[in-house]
Amino acid sequence: MSRAVTLDDAIGALEQAFMDYNRGDIALGGRLMAPCGKPGDTSLVLPATHIRKQYYGFKQATTFSENAGRGLPTVLSQYFLYSNVTGQPRAVMDFMEMTSIKTGVAAAIAARHLARPDTRVVGIIGSGVLSRPVLAAICRVMKIERVNIFDLNPRQARVFATYAQEVLDVECLVAESSRGCVRDAQIVCTCTTSRKPVLDGDDLSPGCHINAMGSYNLDMQELDEKTVNRADRIVTDVPRDTLNASGDLACLANKDVVAALDRIMSGEIPGRKSEKDITIYESVGFSVLDMALALFAHEACLSKGFGQDVAFSSRDSEQ
Amino acid sequence: MSRAVTLDDAIGALEQAFMDYNRGDIALGGRLMAPCGKPGDTSLVLPATHIRKQYYGFKQATTFSENAGRGLPTVLSQYFLYSNVTGQPRAVMDFMEMTSIKTGVAAAIAARHLARPDTRVVGIIGSGVLSRPVLAAICRVMKIERVNIFDLNPRQARVFATYAQEVLDVECLVAESSRGCVRDAQIVCTCTTSRKPVLDGDDLSPGCHINAMGSYNLDMQELDEKTVNRADRIVTDVPRDTLNASGDLACLANKDVVAALDRIMSGEIPGRKSEKDITIYESVGFSVLDMALALFAHEACLSKGFGQDVAFSSRDSEQ
Repeated sequence: MSRAVTLDDAIGALEQAFMDYNRGDIALGGRLMAPCGKPGDTSLVLPATHIRKQYYGFKQATTFSENAGRGLPTVLSQYFLYSNVTGQPRAVMDFMEMTSIKTGVAAAIAARHLARPDTRVVGIIGSGVLSRPVLAAICRVMKIERVNIFDLNPRQARVFATYAQEVLDVECLVAESSRGCVRDAQIVCTCTTSRKPVLDGDDLSPGCHINAMGSYNLDMQELDEKTVNRADRIVTDVPRDTLNASGDLACLANKDVVAALDRIMSGEIPGRKSEKDITIYESVGFSVLDMALALFAHEACLSKGFGQDVAFSSRDSEQ
Repeated sequence: MSRAVTLDDAIGALEQAFMDYNRGDIALGGRLMAPCGKPGDTSLVLPATHIRKQYYGFKQATTFSENAGRGLPTVLSQYFLYSNVTGQPRAVMDFMEMTSIKTGVAAAIAARHLARPDTRVVGIIGSGVLSRPVLAAICRVMKIERVNIFDLNPRQARVFATYAQEVLDVECLVAESSRGCVRDAQIVCTCTTSRKPVLDGDDLSPGCHINAMGSYNLDMQELDEKTVNRADRIVTDVPRDTLNASGDLACLANKDVVAALDRIMSGEIPGRKSEKDITIYESVGFSVLDMALALFAHEACLSKGFGQDVAFSSRDSEQ
């Protein structure tokens, strides 16, 4: 699917999706977590409805932890799109790469609205699957001069550095510590699957914006208590859900700093108030964005005549 | 998909599925009901895992009430099948016709295990989508000589009668009342979407078995209080779920008569104890059967080289 959608397309589609959600034009469904595979493996179903465009759909994402040993991705996902007029199926699409793009773009949108406008340096901890799309997307929305990368696996960090330099044309410093990665960065992205903090809040420079992208359940944690309680503003997609879904915010003393990103974007709630504010975007997955990106890809495939990645895809005769 | 599976195949596969469920070889997932379309329209996701055969999957079924006015089915459904080893997708299939077959076959299996062995007459109330597969399946498992059909729409009842006579080679009487339909029947099937009783318990003959197939939420009701409280044995797929899912059983005084069909089939719990017992199979949908039938169809498609109804379908290299 990703061949049908450029990064700029995705940024535009997801900025629009936050605004559609803010106005009630896209609605969140519930979520279903079902066991499958070995104990601990799961299937997650995440529905949403695009009321304005008259589609509904859901993402199905599986986590099979033993896949790593098979050379397969641990997380697999697909998107299923339906007419919201008749319930007829409209498209089935592989959604693995699109999910990474969505997560990276959402973090870039958060950075655009919360980071210091004079940001030039990004620090990224963890050079896995999320690191490339988040840097690529941030580079489309801000003027980035250098990225610092830190990974416990230095070889993987060097591969990332080559990508940053060759593909994105951004200077890249392979840091030897978390501290070296974050201390001169105005935006810090944590892209790990860690169960304990990957940075020390004392290392952050004043005015830093953090995209905490890896923790999506209460057992996972990338930020330490100092970082969380230094924050002047913490934004999430759906605050109540995020407080129950990320281990990062379990230690949060003052819940009043938490706000929904769409309400910052619409101007209802202030985001950054000074150059020295610490801001955090805590990302746990937002099915509104999956829906919007799947629908954008579907419409792009129809208009461009693409079909090779789409199992079935058809126009809605009623619409 | 239904071209890949004969009715006898489906009967064998679903008898096996009840036994697999009884032994813990197929596990039920939860269920997710999401709003879509107009108020009252829904999307239902029903997962299950075939532990022995190493597949998991889910059915997605939509109810769009205004579809009838468009000449489209009100209920649409698809099945999504995955490897339970890796989470990789294995098949997507349209599941509308398969759902009707499943429901009809499950009722026939219940009748085989609960109705009087000397049953010769079946009464069917409601000549809609469920009436044909249930009669066809009962005729495969019992020696039926006549069917009585009653429908508020006599024209539709006559179309059903032609089907029964021409396709199934069974004599068919178009009854002028519910009473005329059920009074000499040893098996009665209610196949309506009614919100109030469609038969009078006093009209049932002693020894009758009833397949109550239409009610799948608390607002729907086909059986009257007399029928329910006359019953010596009521079987369902998952008793606790059924008691919360069907309006038929809201009036039940003695919950001890309720038992799971798989436990009757395995001999753990007695079913019919005498020729005069009234028995009821209350059917609200059982995702274990959807899984088993989808997997049977998938395997049949692979072994027969069929592919025309399958959007994507592949063997699991690990299995």
